[in-house]
Amino acid sequence: MAEATKVHLSFDELVSLLEQIFLNNNVSATNARILALNCASCERDGSFSHGVFRVPGYVSSLKSGWVDGAAVPEVEDCGPAFLRVNANNGFTQPAFLAARDQLVEKVKTNGVAVMAVRRSHHFSALWPDVEPFADQGLVALSVVNSFACVVPHGGKKALFGTNPVAFAAPREGAPPFVFDQATSAIANGDVQMAAREGKQLKPGMGVDRDGQPTTDPKAILDGGALLPFGGHKGNSIALMVEILGAALTGGYFSSEFDWSTHEGAQTPYTGQMFIVIDPERGGNAVFQHRVAEICDLALDAGQERLPGDRRHVTRALAAKDGIPLDAENLEKLRTLAAG
Amino acid sequence: MAEATKVHLSFDELVSLLEQIFLNNNVSATNARILALNCASCERDGSFSHGVFRVPGYVSSLKSGWVDGAAVPEVEDCGPAFLRVNANNGFTQPAFLAARDQLVEKVKTNGVAVMAVRRSHHFSALWPDVEPFADQGLVALSVVNSFACVVPHGGKKALFGTNPVAFAAPREGAPPFVFDQATSAIANGDVQMAAREGKQLKPGMGVDRDGQPTTDPKAILDGGALLPFGGHKGNSIALMVEILGAALTGGYFSSEFDWSTHEGAQTPYTGQMFIVIDPERGGNAVFQHRVAEICDLALDAGQERLPGDRRHVTRALAAKDGIPLDAENLEKLRTLAAG
Repeated sequence: MAEATKVHLSFDELVSLLEQIFLNNNVSATNARILALNCASCERDGSFSHGVFRVPGYVSSLKSGWVDGAAVPEVEDCGPAFLRVNANNGFTQPAFLAARDQLVEKVKTNGVAVMAVRRSHHFSALWPDVEPFADQGLVALSVVNSFACVVPHGGKKALFGTNPVAFAAPREGAPPFVFDQATSAIANGDVQMAAREGKQLKPGMGVDRDGQPTTDPKAILDGGALLPFGGHKGNSIALMVEILGAALTGGYFSSEFDWSTHEGAQTPYTGQMFIVIDPERGGNAVFQHRVAEICDLALDAGQERLPGDRRHVTRALAAKDGIPLDAENLEKLRTLAAG
Repeated sequence: MAEATKVHLSFDELVSLLEQIFLNNNVSATNARILALNCASCERDGSFSHGVFRVPGYVSSLKSGWVDGAAVPEVEDCGPAFLRVNANNGFTQPAFLAARDQLVEKVKTNGVAVMAVRRSHHFSALWPDVEPFADQGLVALSVVNSFACVVPHGGKKALFGTNPVAFAAPREGAPPFVFDQATSAIANGDVQMAAREGKQLKPGMGVDRDGQPTTDPKAILDGGALLPFGGHKGNSIALMVEILGAALTGGYFSSEFDWSTHEGAQTPYTGQMFIVIDPERGGNAVFQHRVAEICDLALDAGQERLPGDRRHVTRALAAKDGIPLDAENLEKLRTLAAG
């Protein structure tokens, strides 16, 4: 079996290439830069289901008119520790970045602050949204709801999105502790990748269009649905994400928006919630040291690896050797960039 | 098989009985009232593993000198939206209740606030801590770490506590949406109850002293350990609870405190973290309506019941008929109350 030929790009080269693709698809210069950095970061870290794999989805959704690539977000100050952002039907990342500095200022002043983003499309991984807060010494928790593709525990009808939860905390002497996990038993991007590669899934990941358990990713994508992770407990977290990501932000529930009139639309139109905390507030100067301690204790107790660690290894490799891309994929990206 | 004879007590009768037991065991009047209300509420709602079942554990821990029933908590204002509370080796409930009004004021002023409790013993369910915030129209998230009885996913050595996460949100026309769930595959109290009743557990709940899977609750309690729920994802949440409940509060990790010098000690000496949000901040007056909507949608999609609903049914029954207690158990409680 022949391995696909790999071509290595520097991070900046990949960002420029992606930026041009976004610019060619009615994305504003500001937003194109943000989305390109985000997508390239995922690819660089080995988050492949949210890296260049997503480019056709971005382009398709932009072409459909479903998402506004040139949207200008509106930031609303709702009190000393509360910001709301209306993404105005644009992507979430430019929306929360427009409010980010103000959020950090609020956290530093008050000890904690909340940012609630609505009318927003999130089409990437969640870790890039929280990790930078930990790089600044802050603790961040974020949730985003998506599109109905998960049946409630014991149910038959898709209601929840994959509804990921991401958490980041600074760690002494090491990259931040970061996890980013879907509340579905598997991420939707991973089902798509398995379908594309003709692989079967493990049991317990999803149901077919009749609500019956299946291991076939195509049956899940073709009218079936995913299951929540961890039974009724994961289900409760998925429901909490709808409450925080949509009810609290003023965004749509995962089951609520109608993209059927926009053929090719792929980006969920929902909301995103951030809670950011200053962990050293009150003189707790040992916080980062304590995070390092509990991480080391987990490894010592037999936990194979910490979430996020594989990304940091992949990132370090990419810094040395460049980001490996399939030659064929790269050609497609270059064609899209040529316009 | 003979059913145990049931005696029905009013809520107030049960509170008085429990209060006297705490008073007889070196608990201050203020703290005895708080603990009695908490324990009676659990029994009333059918949270049996945290109801009167816990009384011998409370008494044993108090007698051992491990926990200070007369502790006076110290509240520290750490900024506009951040409170710290030192429970001074007392129970958590009196500690956070000492700061509760101030916390709510901070939430109403700022939109969100954090309360970090340390040097505290939590020996009850977590839902009683968050539900009252939702009764006031607020959203509350709380975590508490406990004592090392959960092996990390893929590991062999107990490191995490059962580390529950509780969440409450107000819901229009219905009791609040509340969940309270251990990040272990099963709650420790439920393992104790199964052991007492001679029942086997479902597979996947725990390991024996050699780290091998077992369904015997006694093997889990006798040097074995629980497993996290939901594999590596539940594991990450358990680790987050250590970070928020201990590293951020300044409390001990679940694996860190040494109670071996206090024979009979049963109450974990850790920390507890609260994040409380004003969901209507910024003019989002439909929040409670939206929570009701997503709950109804979940039931409509086939979810059997919502977390917390069974408690509210049991509570309503208790309001009508009183709280049913085994006659034999009640006799033991009365003996303890007689002193």
